[in-house]
Amino acid sequence: MSKVKIGVDAYGGDNAPKAVVEGALSALKNNYLSRDELALVGNELPNDLLKSLEGVEIIPAKKLVTNETKPTEVLKLEDSSMYIGCKYLKEKKLDAFVSAGNTGALLASGTFVAGRLEGIKRPALVLALPSKSDKPKILVDAGANAEVKAEHFYDFAREGIAYAKFLNIENPRVAILNIGSEEEKGNTLIKDAYSLLKSHTNLNFVGFVEAREIFDDTCDVVVTDGFTGNNVLKTIEGTAYFILHELKAIIKKGGLFTKLGALFLKSPLKTLMEKIDYRSYGGTFFLGINGILVKAHGSSDAEAISNAIYVATKAARFDLLSNIEL
Amino acid sequence: MSKVKIGVDAYGGDNAPKAVVEGALSALKNNYLSRDELALVGNELPNDLLKSLEGVEIIPAKKLVTNETKPTEVLKLEDSSMYIGCKYLKEKKLDAFVSAGNTGALLASGTFVAGRLEGIKRPALVLALPSKSDKPKILVDAGANAEVKAEHFYDFAREGIAYAKFLNIENPRVAILNIGSEEEKGNTLIKDAYSLLKSHTNLNFVGFVEAREIFDDTCDVVVTDGFTGNNVLKTIEGTAYFILHELKAIIKKGGLFTKLGALFLKSPLKTLMEKIDYRSYGGTFFLGINGILVKAHGSSDAEAISNAIYVATKAARFDLLSNIEL
Repeated sequence: MSKVKIGVDAYGGDNAPKAVVEGALSALKNNYLSRDELALVGNELPNDLLKSLEGVEIIPAKKLVTNETKPTEVLKLEDSSMYIGCKYLKEKKLDAFVSAGNTGALLASGTFVAGRLEGIKRPALVLALPSKSDKPKILVDAGANAEVKAEHFYDFAREGIAYAKFLNIENPRVAILNIGSEEEKGNTLIKDAYSLLKSHTNLNFVGFVEAREIFDDTCDVVVTDGFTGNNVLKTIEGTAYFILHELKAIIKKGGLFTKLGALFLKSPLKTLMEKIDYRSYGGTFFLGINGILVKAHGSSDAEAISNAIYVATKAARFDLLSNIEL
Repeated sequence: MSKVKIGVDAYGGDNAPKAVVEGALSALKNNYLSRDELALVGNELPNDLLKSLEGVEIIPAKKLVTNETKPTEVLKLEDSSMYIGCKYLKEKKLDAFVSAGNTGALLASGTFVAGRLEGIKRPALVLALPSKSDKPKILVDAGANAEVKAEHFYDFAREGIAYAKFLNIENPRVAILNIGSEEEKGNTLIKDAYSLLKSHTNLNFVGFVEAREIFDDTCDVVVTDGFTGNNVLKTIEGTAYFILHELKAIIKKGGLFTKLGALFLKSPLKTLMEKIDYRSYGGTFFLGINGILVKAHGSSDAEAISNAIYVATKAARFDLLSNIEL
């Protein structure tokens, strides 16, 4: 196994730096990677945290990016952990960079500091959703590009396919999300995107898919603009929480048998909610840039950071980027 | 109580005409309206069905619209039940018209045969979703307009407010669906719509809302374009079915206690799924046209048709249209 170098943003996320350091330690303990393969980007840390990371490279960087930092501002913060992490990606000093920090700032750093891959105009957020089959479903763009043109759908398709292959899906079927499956449905953007993807015979393009089938085994990669994709993602989240909320209310109001039933189903229901929670999945990649960038959720705890380091390491070893057809 | 006249499309939906006639009879039996308040649009029916409707007005119309009929085609089918139903709306011969037929064709008939209300450019599909509070949540546009401009959001807002008031929500809070709640988030369309709604001080505009809060009590009317709205709606549906599917799989694989738990929770879970199924709700209105048009789901059974007749009757008695601020 060739050595890789995975950088982690020490200051990223609501629970940084503690959750980040604990997550890194957990990743080491689980043998996801070795100490010399890990780098922490950011050295302004309490001594006890720094000490626990002995043998891990510490890349000096300042805590400058907050949740309020605007995407354009981060490009001036050259000493920030985000900027430096992305610069190291570009310079191949890091094979992957993990951050739970401000999404907009991270996407800007990825796009303009690490830089786009040649042949890609629009990098996108790519993530894996659960599905009814044993294969995950890839959603792209999950929220990076709120304003897109039809031509960008070809970038999204190739980014999604690369991730699908990384997840061992062979010859991934690509579909465009639409409000009907007939060819004449949807708006101009969607119809143009349809013609474009159809013209690329290298793609296994299967046409339109509706959101109600998003968990069905009718395609592997669902391509959409970042505005719609993000709304779909958050609707899944909102619906799952709503169902859980209502179920709890019913159980609370219910009689003895209902409460007993809930007790018996407690563990299966927990498994179910974990399966539905896409955040517990592979992690969200920002694909299409010069390097592997993993966006961890802002509220990541140590376990989530550890998982993100795991997928980043796996993607680096697998050479995920070489899978993007350019 | 003043008399109203409610028309029902005899040929609309996958289970027509049987489910339509049975639904109409059920509505009569439940005293939602009296026989002389009901009209069936379409007379090409088996004798036994026609006979059961004694005392109900039968408006002659032909079965011409199918699921394959394109929206533009229906405008030439002047003898079709859809065309005649919408013409009668315009001529005030009907106070409301219910159809489970081809959505695109129905929206075209509504827009161009019944005609738009003066002061409204874009009629929209308006529907009620469940919510965590005891009030429903109004979603508009749920799928009529795949291509919109910022100015149409003001139409959508007024249509949504009218429906909210019909559902006894006082001074409804209006929000625009976006991928973040900060003012600078989203695409140009959304930002322009934000400025527009903010400038209309007659609205109780509360800013942006994210899809993950769609069931929360942070607003009453969620305004979005028809492409996003329809995707959100179908994502809710897909997610609910997915959760149910996974739950069944877990129970099937589970041991005795899991199965017992499922048995005890069977009835609560059924109640829950019914609450989540927006199709069992108030019905979907196509608001902004000259008349009350209720779109029943294509797969409507007799009960769904009966419910749709109920809401159409209630909306006619309540004079829903007068609630749209023009």
